Amino acid sequence: MSENRFNPMQTAFEQAIAARARGEVPIGAVIVDGKTGQVLAAAGNQIHGQNDPTAHAEIVALRLAGQRLGSPRLVNCDLYVTLEPCPMCAQAIAFARIRRLYFAAFDVKGGGVDHGPQIFRQPTCHHQPEVIGGVREREAAELLKAFFKERR
Amino acid sequence: MSENRFNPMQTAFEQAIAARARGEVPIGAVIVDGKTGQVLAAAGNQIHGQNDPTAHAEIVALRLAGQRLGSPRLVNCDLYVTLEPCPMCAQAIAFARIRRLYFAAFDVKGGGVDHGPQIFRQPTCHHQPEVIGGVREREAAELLKAFFKERR
Repeated sequence: MSENRFNPMQTAFEQAIAARARGEVPIGAVIVDGKTGQVLAAAGNQIHGQNDPTAHAEIVALRLAGQRLGSPRLVNCDLYVTLEPCPMCAQAIAFARIRRLYFAAFDVKGGGVDHGPQIFRQPTCHHQPEVIGGVREREAAELLKAFFKERR
Repeated sequence: MSENRFNPMQTAFEQAIAARARGEVPIGAVIVDGKTGQVLAAAGNQIHGQNDPTAHAEIVALRLAGQRLGSPRLVNCDLYVTLEPCPMCAQAIAFARIRRLYFAAFDVKGGGVDHGPQIFRQPTCHHQPEVIGGVREREAAELLKAFFKERR
């Protein structure tokens, strides 16, 4: 298995670090065309910068990729994110028809994929992406831990 | 009890009808400053118009109200919407700290408040708005039913 498929996660980490520099919680997301490998969108959290309670990295990236493709359905696209998506983002990922979801750290307190409502397992969820969790898990968890420690 | 508190629902219905005219699923949402009664944001679905899988009426309204208030937290604000919010929108409503949620029709298939993951009852959900469902329920359900019937 090539390491190349995890290069988008590196870009997601760079977005997370850029978000931290803006005073946002350090989370980054990248959307890739799964057929060509082309990066369609890369974003970090923008909640405070945009005064937008919905501006998690994943939502911002889904919005950008939809505009770029000219469709709200991101067929054959994969999403990489440094933290397990929350229920809002997980449901948005299902609506966008994301093919594969790669995430780094697990989120016991706020996650919505492996934790909480486990959105993709709900009977009201009509699309289930393939999910690969724990990619560079420790690194992502440490990035978040350091951020919240500084904040206290 | 005055009827005035339900006037924002009339505005939400007007947004739903405007969304239908644009070819979107007819759902509308309004956010009101609960102290002054001022309408901060009114929106209908914009999924196809914006190529944005996240552009449900509630998300668009939350985004507009956050920009208007200059904060991602909509403290003391109430949200009126013509359909029970989906899990994505319910979680966004919790993140925004919405005080009261009024919705019209119930959504057995896609809802996330009284149905599916019942987002506000999840241990991973850290804010629970007061919820009043079924306001002008039949009217909202008929609006949606007529739309989907035309589409078939």
